[in-house]
Amino acid sequence: MLQNNQRGGQSLAQQVANKIELMIQNQIFKIGEQLPNEFDLAAELNVGRGTIREAIKLLAARNIVRIQRGKGTFVSETPGLTEDPLGLNFIEDKQRLSHDLMAVRMMIEPEICQLAARHATEEEVQEMVSICHEIEELIYQNKNHESKDIELHSLIAKASKNVVVPSLIPIIQTAISLFINLTNRRLKEETIETHREIVEAIKNKDEKLAKEAMERHLGFNKKELKL
Amino acid sequence: MLQNNQRGGQSLAQQVANKIELMIQNQIFKIGEQLPNEFDLAAELNVGRGTIREAIKLLAARNIVRIQRGKGTFVSETPGLTEDPLGLNFIEDKQRLSHDLMAVRMMIEPEICQLAARHATEEEVQEMVSICHEIEELIYQNKNHESKDIELHSLIAKASKNVVVPSLIPIIQTAISLFINLTNRRLKEETIETHREIVEAIKNKDEKLAKEAMERHLGFNKKELKL
Repeated sequence: MLQNNQRGGQSLAQQVANKIELMIQNQIFKIGEQLPNEFDLAAELNVGRGTIREAIKLLAARNIVRIQRGKGTFVSETPGLTEDPLGLNFIEDKQRLSHDLMAVRMMIEPEICQLAARHATEEEVQEMVSICHEIEELIYQNKNHESKDIELHSLIAKASKNVVVPSLIPIIQTAISLFINLTNRRLKEETIETHREIVEAIKNKDEKLAKEAMERHLGFNKKELKL
Repeated sequence: MLQNNQRGGQSLAQQVANKIELMIQNQIFKIGEQLPNEFDLAAELNVGRGTIREAIKLLAARNIVRIQRGKGTFVSETPGLTEDPLGLNFIEDKQRLSHDLMAVRMMIEPEICQLAARHATEEEVQEMVSICHEIEELIYQNKNHESKDIELHSLIAKASKNVVVPSLIPIIQTAISLFINLTNRRLKEETIETHREIVEAIKNKDEKLAKEAMERHLGFNKKELKL
């Protein structure tokens, strides 16, 4: 039911790639594990080594496996999740994309933040506090805080312990990048203050406040974008 | 800012694939449009035709282009969006996946349904009404309504007119497939009744009721899964 539909007219390499993908889904090859070498895979799947090599490249293009030169081929740590899994980079109207991304963030991030307040470990909270400080430092020094901002929001998503939520991080990531660039990094005080509120609420396991703080944080961003 | 990071040690074909991907993102080649033939692409990008052929295969694996035998290569209608963009098929624990997918659906679908009540066209509403009838028919005949169910929820997502939301449809799709299989298709009356409520509210442009009806619909499902 979950496996990919077969498309008509697929090349042999694509068919072999599908087979290997299914083997990974069925945990015959596990996450992070090294695949057998070309020779053994060719024998097992009854095709030539050239076909195996081509199939592996197709799987690497979709980040199902990663090829390490001189070491071998490994099942990816985040199989099937590419850098732009939702094809957001292909949406033409960046202003509209930014608006609609914000609408989706408003749907998911307050709830994710509430889950993080419930499930974050001591260690995760400590890391959030320290990233929060780093962001403040960067803002005071008038440096770009984009990657640290993404790190904080991604960590909150991870702390929710919902297995689907990490797959949504690229949405948050694209939204933050677009936002910081479109607004040219105004909103310094509001960012510092609402980040602090969010992390404090998660630390205190105050689910309601965590949700509200994230709503406030996104609200400032939304207002700044004049959305 | 939005382009993919260069990874170290990429093959020439992968580098050429990246270049073509950027050309598509920058609308040098537009959605649905046919790419120049191998010969012209090879000349333009200053590489051999074999490299172009390999690059095109890598792009096809990620659904950025689609190869039509005997016709040529076209920019995909949904570039970069693969059948399982979030790698959900690779999550091992299906019970937990089902639970967490439901949590994410609860975050997004009521709000999406509210947007659909605001933005759905007359034509979309007519289509929803007719899919709704088809689902009822299938349920009464004790046939599998999975694909029609997915069609209805996808149409509601499309009717929201948010450009990011269609990218979230694979989440809804995976969730419905998993759900219908895990519950072995109980919940017939509730499905019929709440689907009707949803479509009726969208038809009447009643945003509040549309949101609530979707919450109720998902609530029945959640209860049935004993989540």
